[in-house]
Amino acid sequence: MHVLILGTASIIGRKLATVLVRFGVLNGTRVTRLMLADASEPEVPAELVPGDLRITTTAVDMAVQGAAQAPVAVRPDLIFHLAAIVSAEAEADFEKGYSVNIDGTRALFEAIRMLAAREHYRPCFVFTFPIATFDRSFPQVIEDDFIHAPQTSYGTQKAIWELLLDDYSRRGILDGVALRMPTICIRPGRLNRAALGFSSSVLREPLLGQEAVLPVDESLRHWHASPRGRWIPPARSNHADRAAGADHAWRLRHGGRADRGSLAYSRRSSGGADPARTRSCRWQDHRGLAGSFSPLPSPRVRISSRKGLR
Amino acid sequence: MHVLILGTASIIGRKLATVLVRFGVLNGTRVTRLMLADASEPEVPAELVPGDLRITTTAVDMAVQGAAQAPVAVRPDLIFHLAAIVSAEAEADFEKGYSVNIDGTRALFEAIRMLAAREHYRPCFVFTFPIATFDRSFPQVIEDDFIHAPQTSYGTQKAIWELLLDDYSRRGILDGVALRMPTICIRPGRLNRAALGFSSSVLREPLLGQEAVLPVDESLRHWHASPRGRWIPPARSNHADRAAGADHAWRLRHGGRADRGSLAYSRRSSGGADPARTRSCRWQDHRGLAGSFSPLPSPRVRISSRKGLR
Repeated sequence: MHVLILGTASIIGRKLATVLVRFGVLNGTRVTRLMLADASEPEVPAELVPGDLRITTTAVDMAVQGAAQAPVAVRPDLIFHLAAIVSAEAEADFEKGYSVNIDGTRALFEAIRMLAAREHYRPCFVFTFPIATFDRSFPQVIEDDFIHAPQTSYGTQKAIWELLLDDYSRRGILDGVALRMPTICIRPGRLNRAALGFSSSVLREPLLGQEAVLPVDESLRHWHASPRGRWIPPARSNHADRAAGADHAWRLRHGGRADRGSLAYSRRSSGGADPARTRSCRWQDHRGLAGSFSPLPSPRVRISSRKGLR
Repeated sequence: MHVLILGTASIIGRKLATVLVRFGVLNGTRVTRLMLADASEPEVPAELVPGDLRITTTAVDMAVQGAAQAPVAVRPDLIFHLAAIVSAEAEADFEKGYSVNIDGTRALFEAIRMLAAREHYRPCFVFTFPIATFDRSFPQVIEDDFIHAPQTSYGTQKAIWELLLDDYSRRGILDGVALRMPTICIRPGRLNRAALGFSSSVLREPLLGQEAVLPVDESLRHWHASPRGRWIPPARSNHADRAAGADHAWRLRHGGRADRGSLAYSRRSSGGADPARTRSCRWQDHRGLAGSFSPLPSPRVRISSRKGLR
């Protein structure tokens, strides 16, 4: 099986690549080729020690028209699409967000459709799906049929991804899988422009003796999962088996896995660090985030049978 | 006030133009200019007798890149966007549907954004919104927060329109209004490629002594409203006043207005024609429509306060 990871530089992309190389098998099928792509040509991570797995790297800038054709032309059987302009950046730069997140993704779908029209080609297409597609009035339990009412351009773009994924899947052009993910933290590296980047930085920076900025109220509750969490289910097991159903977007049950609680609570999972050090967080009202997140109740996600899931 | 109707050839476009000319006033503001646009340059309907209202006509083919800029360049204060590739045609012709319904509509939004970036311009933008954005499992009452899970490309495209309308409105680029409409019947003219076109033809053709094809079971229940119904609320009253709210897509209460019942029932409203003549309908299973529509329960639409509506 030939696997393409678009957005390898993301934490999910890196972890996914590592898992694929380590296990070499996906749902019982041997991975023979792994193509790692990002806006800049990615390096093969040091921890990757391929056996008979062939690893290639390539630069794919989704903002460039036609760029999506090259990685699809080699006909990957499984595509993980993790490349996106993240939330706060897509909000700050309207054109860049729509160009990469909408035009780039549609170009990718279209490249697949063009191939599919000429030959038997129908890859499995997996993308991740944030809570940004919901509005602020989270119910106690987010059912699978909870309406998408995004309050950001990023959320709008991701909701459009899912609509497109459903339509292209329904037409048999690809076999779409949408994974609804909790926020991954602690992420390594520096604070990026994701609106929820603070959920990592308020834990990560104090561990390095640096000040972090908390742009929301301390009482915030939010979904999160560890980078070592079991959030790569397609690579680990087949518990995401599709049931017969009209819908082609899956939402995996991650509620039981995501830690629940306030950021204060999450200090407990921050590697046994001195809780006092996390007090160097400074509160700052920032881009209205406090308003976006404050009413979050104890989150649980259930899978609705309406969506043809089990 | 300058009003643009894109898609004047549609029944809604024609009726809307007639109403605007007859009343000359919209929500208390005088209409001074009316631009009628369609893929082919429309004729000014005979029933339109403008007083001091200036009427212009123009051809705007939404499939042509850049075509959206011309009608926006004259800075209409109010835009009704009714131009679309209809349901069965968008399903049969994937590329045409996406080209007109997605690329064309985005180009229109972008033309407005480009103007808005340079000067104070923020038109009111109204579009109509079909039930095709829902999946088949209609609940007894469709609340405003019932999830969009379209099962056709047309429904997908219209659901994307609403997401875009919300995002562009939230950013202050335009003042978006999405009207959820019942199916309008009896429509004049010939059967078009709308999936629900039969709801008109099974009443219209028998009245002309012609055979009509009913592609669904006779027991089908469906929303519909008469062409003379009060489905042009912005032109008639201001009962669609916006309440303060995060969402910018309105859904008007049309449930109370739309006739309810089976197609057999709707004979009653077909102008007193001989019911026996409507028996010349021939049943035909057609494009899976029967499966799409059969489980429709007594429809009612309520407006949810969650959406900032009243």
